[in-house]
Amino acid sequence: MKAWRWCLLVAAFAGAGPGLAQQKPEDAIRYRQSALFLLGQHFGPLAAMVQGKMPYDRDVATRNAALAETMSKLPWDRFGPGTDKGDTKAKPGIWTNQADFKAKADRMQAEVARLAQVSKTGDFDALRVQVGETGKACKACHDEYRNK
Amino acid sequence: MKAWRWCLLVAAFAGAGPGLAQQKPEDAIRYRQSALFLLGQHFGPLAAMVQGKMPYDRDVATRNAALAETMSKLPWDRFGPGTDKGDTKAKPGIWTNQADFKAKADRMQAEVARLAQVSKTGDFDALRVQVGETGKACKACHDEYRNK
Repeated sequence: MKAWRWCLLVAAFAGAGPGLAQQKPEDAIRYRQSALFLLGQHFGPLAAMVQGKMPYDRDVATRNAALAETMSKLPWDRFGPGTDKGDTKAKPGIWTNQADFKAKADRMQAEVARLAQVSKTGDFDALRVQVGETGKACKACHDEYRNK
Repeated sequence: MKAWRWCLLVAAFAGAGPGLAQQKPEDAIRYRQSALFLLGQHFGPLAAMVQGKMPYDRDVATRNAALAETMSKLPWDRFGPGTDKGDTKAKPGIWTNQADFKAKADRMQAEVARLAQVSKTGDFDALRVQVGETGKACKACHDEYRNK
């Protein structure tokens, strides 16, 4: 990837982390994979609740949604130079179609933030709707930018 | 592991997560590894700052310490039945010496929580001391309970 592209990508995502310039690509890849895995693990119980596969519990929902929100913010500054190769399912489109990737990443974060809000209300129907919206946002990005 | 031991372990750690009974052992292992990896990644910049390998910045320190604190709470309910085998460096002592494992896990969490507090003050000397204490708490558990 050309250096200017990387600059664009860094500029595109707010809150770039510390010391990333020295980070090894394999650590950046593992970092973003870890954050996204934890995000999925905390989204899972919410999906299970609205599908009736797990008893609904507002406190459990709220705790998981809050952690999902925290995780949703973490991966984005770890798509730097050299992290397109290696043990990763990331597709090249992430770097060649940055505006769309950012739009999808932003949408996901917004949906997860809304999920965290809705989970606090105890409104189960609203939660079901928002779990659906969040799942769609996850899928939209995975379909386009993650290899199977 | 006998069932009563697992009950003890669950009882020993507060805030057991949702739906863990259905979680696949490999997912529990990946979960705790992800959380501990992210913990290390957010502790790293603090260690680098106090060692003069990275410029000191209170806001960066505070942000990283807060994330380290969040991560420090996550792994402990993912040491359930069947998670002692597989792609893990966890030593058997975790399950045969639960009281000590819990004590070391508790100490680590307390030190990271204190690190998060100290990072906010902007007191660099206090930060250096607390990074040292936190590092010792990490090491104490790794030395005893993690394979190389």
